[in-house]
Amino acid sequence: MYYVKILSELIYTVDATSSFVFNIAAANTVHQQTIEENLTISPTIDSEWFQLNDFGSRGLRLKVEPCELSIQYSATVQLSPDIEQDKYINEVEHKSLPTSVLPFLNPSRYCESDRLGRLAWKEFGQLPSGYSRVVEICNWVNKHIDYVAGSTDASSSACDVLIQRAGVCRDFAHVSIALCRALGIPARYVSGYAVGLEPPDFHGFFEAYLGDRWYLFDATQMAPLSGLVRIGIGLDAATTSFANIVGQAKMQFIKVEATSADSDFPYNNGSPVSTA
Amino acid sequence: MYYVKILSELIYTVDATSSFVFNIAAANTVHQQTIEENLTISPTIDSEWFQLNDFGSRGLRLKVEPCELSIQYSATVQLSPDIEQDKYINEVEHKSLPTSVLPFLNPSRYCESDRLGRLAWKEFGQLPSGYSRVVEICNWVNKHIDYVAGSTDASSSACDVLIQRAGVCRDFAHVSIALCRALGIPARYVSGYAVGLEPPDFHGFFEAYLGDRWYLFDATQMAPLSGLVRIGIGLDAATTSFANIVGQAKMQFIKVEATSADSDFPYNNGSPVSTA
Amino acid sequence: MYYVKILSELIYTVDATSSFVFNIAAANTVHQQTIEENLTISPTIDSEWFQLNDFGSRGLRLKVEPCELSIQYSATVQLSPDIEQDKYINEVEHKSLPTSVLPFLNPSRYCESDRLGRLAWKEFGQLPSGYSRVVEICNWVNKHIDYVAGSTDASSSACDVLIQRAGVCRDFAHVSIALCRALGIPARYVSGYAVGLEPPDFHGFFEAYLGDRWYLFDATQMAPLSGLVRIGIGLDAATTSFANIVGQAKMQFIKVEATSADSDFPYNNGSPVSTA
Amino acid sequence: MYYVKILSELIYTVDATSSFVFNIAAANTVHQQTIEENLTISPTIDSEWFQLNDFGSRGLRLKVEPCELSIQYSATVQLSPDIEQDKYINEVEHKSLPTSVLPFLNPSRYCESDRLGRLAWKEFGQLPSGYSRVVEICNWVNKHIDYVAGSTDASSSACDVLIQRAGVCRDFAHVSIALCRALGIPARYVSGYAVGLEPPDFHGFFEAYLGDRWYLFDATQMAPLSGLVRIGIGLDAATTSFANIVGQAKMQFIKVEATSADSDFPYNNGSPVSTA
Repeated sequence: MYYVKILSELIYTVDATSSFVFNIAAANTVHQQTIEENLTISPTIDSEWFQLNDFGSRGLRLKVEPCELSIQYSATVQLSPDIEQDKYINEVEHKSLPTSVLPFLNPSRYCESDRLGRLAWKEFGQLPSGYSRVVEICNWVNKHIDYVAGSTDASSSACDVLIQRAGVCRDFAHVSIALCRALGIPARYVSGYAVGLEPPDFHGFFEAYLGDRWYLFDATQMAPLSGLVRIGIGLDAATTSFANIVGQAKMQFIKVEATSADSDFPYNNGSPVSTA
Repeated sequence: MYYVKILSELIYTVDATSSFVFNIAAANTVHQQTIEENLTISPTIDSEWFQLNDFGSRGLRLKVEPCELSIQYSATVQLSPDIEQDKYINEVEHKSLPTSVLPFLNPSRYCESDRLGRLAWKEFGQLPSGYSRVVEICNWVNKHIDYVAGSTDASSSACDVLIQRAGVCRDFAHVSIALCRALGIPARYVSGYAVGLEPPDFHGFFEAYLGDRWYLFDATQMAPLSGLVRIGIGLDAATTSFANIVGQAKMQFIKVEATSADSDFPYNNGSPVSTA
Repeated sequence: MYYVKILSELIYTVDATSSFVFNIAAANTVHQQTIEENLTISPTIDSEWFQLNDFGSRGLRLKVEPCELSIQYSATVQLSPDIEQDKYINEVEHKSLPTSVLPFLNPSRYCESDRLGRLAWKEFGQLPSGYSRVVEICNWVNKHIDYVAGSTDASSSACDVLIQRAGVCRDFAHVSIALCRALGIPARYVSGYAVGLEPPDFHGFFEAYLGDRWYLFDATQMAPLSGLVRIGIGLDAATTSFANIVGQAKMQFIKVEATSADSDFPYNNGSPVSTA
Repeated sequence: MYYVKILSELIYTVDATSSFVFNIAAANTVHQQTIEENLTISPTIDSEWFQLNDFGSRGLRLKVEPCELSIQYSATVQLSPDIEQDKYINEVEHKSLPTSVLPFLNPSRYCESDRLGRLAWKEFGQLPSGYSRVVEICNWVNKHIDYVAGSTDASSSACDVLIQRAGVCRDFAHVSIALCRALGIPARYVSGYAVGLEPPDFHGFFEAYLGDRWYLFDATQMAPLSGLVRIGIGLDAATTSFANIVGQAKMQFIKVEATSADSDFPYNNGSPVSTA
């Protein structure tokens, strides 16, 4: 058990009445508890927290009249992931998967697993089944895709990225998820904060269902798994963007931080990490 | 209130141990109740019903050893839709949408609403807001897309269909849903049985959120809305295919029926129909 | 017969030895003659003019060492297009097309006519055949596609633009060409200068083969057909970009002009114009 | 110098007046001469041979009234390729390429080299430059793409095939060409007959410009390079399909043969082969 401090500041110029949904708060789960939390909205506006899903994610809704909107969110989060010693963790046969996990085998907007069956089986079909195969998928993605800021946009999908071979964290996650699903491994997108990410920003990574639970993976290899703080969960980034805005608003400033001053903070050594 | 009888028969040659998930049963909702239901599986195999979502949909899981698998499902379903007299039904501003409805504004695998904003606003932006605008979307889809059996496959999305201008019921629904979402109207895919559909088959249609509820629409205009029997609901067809199979199995036969001998059966006259 | 003055200035920072091919010179054809022409390259570099195709287009090749490269090209061009009084101009049956015209029925990188048959026939199949049908295609493109600077890039094709409904001159030409070919009307891309274009820039338009010759069309409707000065011709913009560069060079400045001080200059009144 | 006999038989049911362009005849070049040739068309119809390009390709045009159309073409072709002993063959810097070769660096309908720069450089950028690099591209394509009859259609491009990882000979050629162009190596599509191809059919392969000439390559590795008989040449298959038909006609039968009884026939041993 250890503590991570997270912070995000967002400033928007709002030119016409706009409706915002923010996904910036730490989720509350068995393995992740928000100990202390602070939200400052300027100007003062009624806001509403709501439950985003069954996984402890919370959205924040605001109806904003024209103004300069400033949102400051900070929290201290207690993390208690299962960090496992190396052991064999198996893939689960389709017939034995919990029904709640089945939807995460479906293709989604940014993860067209239905088109990638042959690629996935040709590249990874011969590898030993289990946790290590998902690690190999991450390694493959990391090797074949360049991390290039600005190389993709909101319409870029796993197939696009596999062709252009460049992307950012969300694209690394999308490609990995699509390949997992194509192999029959349930996988889902996770948005969050990440200790040690450079430059600091919101992060996108993923979970794969293995053994009897969801394990964290991050194909960017840019931050330790143990420092990931969960915000949202979904089929892909379509459901987890940090801000959905309908109206007229322009982001002017963004600052994201995640730090651990905790001497118990377990820097990632490649051991399997589960927080779900 | 009136009754519809539905039936589906599916026969597969199963060549290796396979895992099946069928979505063929009528959902149970406030407006749709299964009065009587019959499932015959041959050979005798353990099967498991499970809840697919919060909308009353039920999946059927089977683990099947090599055999000739035959599934017969039939039911009598009591329908009590709200069929409204013509009145103005409004679109709902983003800030006023129930949070449970928000996910159905997101783009999905087969409904790339994120790419279609300009098309949607150019074609439908000048139309009066409300139920009638969704009707116009359906009319537009019906006029611009040809219904051609076999013209699409499991990877065809709304954008593909908008280019090739041909598709089947699921494509008509995907294009309509994508256009609705691009306009800010929540929309979701519904799979089901349809009285009067020729040739008889499983059907795909959609719901849009207007006023304070979900309304049924069918851009194919091939069956009365009042004769639609709901099976599954989802972002698009990715989550609602009538059979998901992992293993080795080949469909040999399919028969689908939906009939109403009920003298109270209200043949669709274009009035808004809501069953959710 | 009348005169147009054209000018282009291009400045590049060349960081490593680079190979340039410029397509900026006015073509010499029966209907377009370069009366006077000036090319200034700084620093002094050996350059080579070469024939780009059988249509009078000329490319300019340069091998450039690291430097600041400045290219100034200016010319006075005598234009003598056939501007026809309104008369019926027919489409040509496939069996009667000159063999030299047949390649311009093929799909190309940016004009996927093979995917657009149904769309083209549904939108334009009922229209009277002939010159007026191509005018209607241009009107349709102009109405359905927004001219938005920066909305497309070098990989955007006709199908992309038909989905996103925004583009620039080259995209307007690509969509029009693709639709023509899908209807069986040979069409080709033309790059050039355009009198009256605002803001001034290189322009992209197209020709369709009708009657017994190629007629000019410009779906952007941003400049009179009579003021178009031809540079290159090709299947699409892939073959006619104003600069192909291999090496390391960055454009710092571009200026393009096309003006006619000629009192005989015939401002376009919608009459068919042919210069090929 | 050695001889290959080729034959093709095509039968169509023509339901309405149709216009045909066949590309089935052996080209005549310095390295390939048609010694004897036979064309039988039934019923008797006026036909016209025409020159397809500057590379010795010939098209055959027919205007056909409703009938059962039968085409039989056979020829004896003398081949005298340059088959080189192993030696280093270099890639050519852009600035030193003949201008006639430059168009084969452009992206085309089925070879989107503009999208594949990063993939090409990541996979092949570290390899030694020259003939052997193109061989490695062919090997990579052969390893990563499965040959699956029926897996692609007339709209499938290199990018599609790189995602789905399956295709036929034309797709193997398209992917290889796109990768070559992305690396700056001019490449073009060649259609032809192939001795030893199983099952016998028209074949698609490609040429890359290296040293001072075009060399033959075939990523399918299904037939010896020395037994390839050239029909057409183009940017990609868009310009070289064996039959272009406008009208209403349905192929009923196709038979293609290419055999060499010649004892001098040099079975391919991997040596570079040039016939252009």
